[in-house]
Amino acid sequence: MGQQWLYGSAEGAIAARQTFGALTSYALAKAKTRPADSVIIDEATGRPVPCGNKPLAAVFDADETLIWNVGSMRWFAMQGKDFDPATWDQWEKTGTGKALAMPGALEAMAALRAAGITPIANTNRSTANAKGSEATLAAAGLGDFKHGETLFLMGDDATGSSKDMRRATIAARWCVVAMAGDQLGDFRNAFNKPELPPLQRRTLATAAPYDGLWGNGWFLFANPVYGPSIRGGFDDIFPAETHWEPDTL
Amino acid sequence: MGQQWLYGSAEGAIAARQTFGALTSYALAKAKTRPADSVIIDEATGRPVPCGNKPLAAVFDADETLIWNVGSMRWFAMQGKDFDPATWDQWEKTGTGKALAMPGALEAMAALRAAGITPIANTNRSTANAKGSEATLAAAGLGDFKHGETLFLMGDDATGSSKDMRRATIAARWCVVAMAGDQLGDFRNAFNKPELPPLQRRTLATAAPYDGLWGNGWFLFANPVYGPSIRGGFDDIFPAETHWEPDTL
Repeated sequence: MGQQWLYGSAEGAIAARQTFGALTSYALAKAKTRPADSVIIDEATGRPVPCGNKPLAAVFDADETLIWNVGSMRWFAMQGKDFDPATWDQWEKTGTGKALAMPGALEAMAALRAAGITPIANTNRSTANAKGSEATLAAAGLGDFKHGETLFLMGDDATGSSKDMRRATIAARWCVVAMAGDQLGDFRNAFNKPELPPLQRRTLATAAPYDGLWGNGWFLFANPVYGPSIRGGFDDIFPAETHWEPDTL
Repeated sequence: MGQQWLYGSAEGAIAARQTFGALTSYALAKAKTRPADSVIIDEATGRPVPCGNKPLAAVFDADETLIWNVGSMRWFAMQGKDFDPATWDQWEKTGTGKALAMPGALEAMAALRAAGITPIANTNRSTANAKGSEATLAAAGLGDFKHGETLFLMGDDATGSSKDMRRATIAARWCVVAMAGDQLGDFRNAFNKPELPPLQRRTLATAAPYDGLWGNGWFLFANPVYGPSIRGGFDDIFPAETHWEPDTL
């Protein structure tokens, strides 16, 4: 169902276009007046990183944010698998041309670049497969993402799948006017708590002082196919006070 | 998976909030200058209905747009059913208090009303259960939706589940500055073609002259749980040119 909605449906494509449209409008408006702060949080202070005179950028996750991994997702689905790390590693190496730009991504990249905002990818694809991921993004029409400059990968530093240190590296060089992803870890690793019960995790990610950033600097893409959002049993996701049953059947 | 994402996850809640935020910003900006046209299409001419001096409104689908039907959805999931019309009929009658406002809906209703924009619901809940649906919307905190005035239901006219004639009725009385739903039929019945292959249906809904309305007057909410978006086999949703398989396993 998630795959049908995300990869096949008009509704899934329109939702992605809407999010790219909102991000582009926001970033272009911000760029006009050069904001004082990046939308990247300094995890040592909890405050945004100052922009200074740094050049403008927008930071994107890659998978299911810039690109639809339709080649590998079809393979996994046909095997009846959710995910397999060895197959994914091959996909990073050889998937070039078999991933598609997300609906609205090409228009967004063009509009951002025309406004002097550099798109940067911060993804948990592996440093070892940098060439494959650079080629996959380019073949999807998304333009140049260059490892170490505009493409940041898992293995670039010693902190594994957390993207916080890579965000700090990016924010040290760039004034980041917008950030986008399909997972909470694309915004702050402190939100990425798959071990928390879903409703507690929701409360954490939508609490002050960061809640106002959603849709205002931070843009989340719907991904009902994989990730820590796909968790929980009936009692975890349906609050007890909403339990209902029909009188007669 | 769709239910976990939509009803349980931080990501699903954030996506809904973002869409309500974008709609509210758009509607408030439009209201300031009174637009010439509604965002409702006159299906006889293909052109927007003129606003004249009509009062301002925003039109919403109800289910999975204003309200989360968590009571009935949990019941269906526990029975291993997708849907059952007799149970749904009871839900419309007796579900009051067991449906929740969608994340961001309460803030959006308050902001629209404060700006002089009346929220109107156009839903395929049944005319026979008008009282139940009025009570369900009110109990979720969404305010007054009154049948025939600000609540339009299936059975209000002779055209069944098509919402086009109800939209015409609404646009004859109101200047509609924004419209929202989780299904293509919430915007134009001509898009609501479950019989079309998914990729053709996507092309239809994102083609000129209406494509520019998505995110600009029309706002779609992600619903990976039910509806005509949940269709198609592997070959329908994954284009042949993106087929891929690993070299070795």
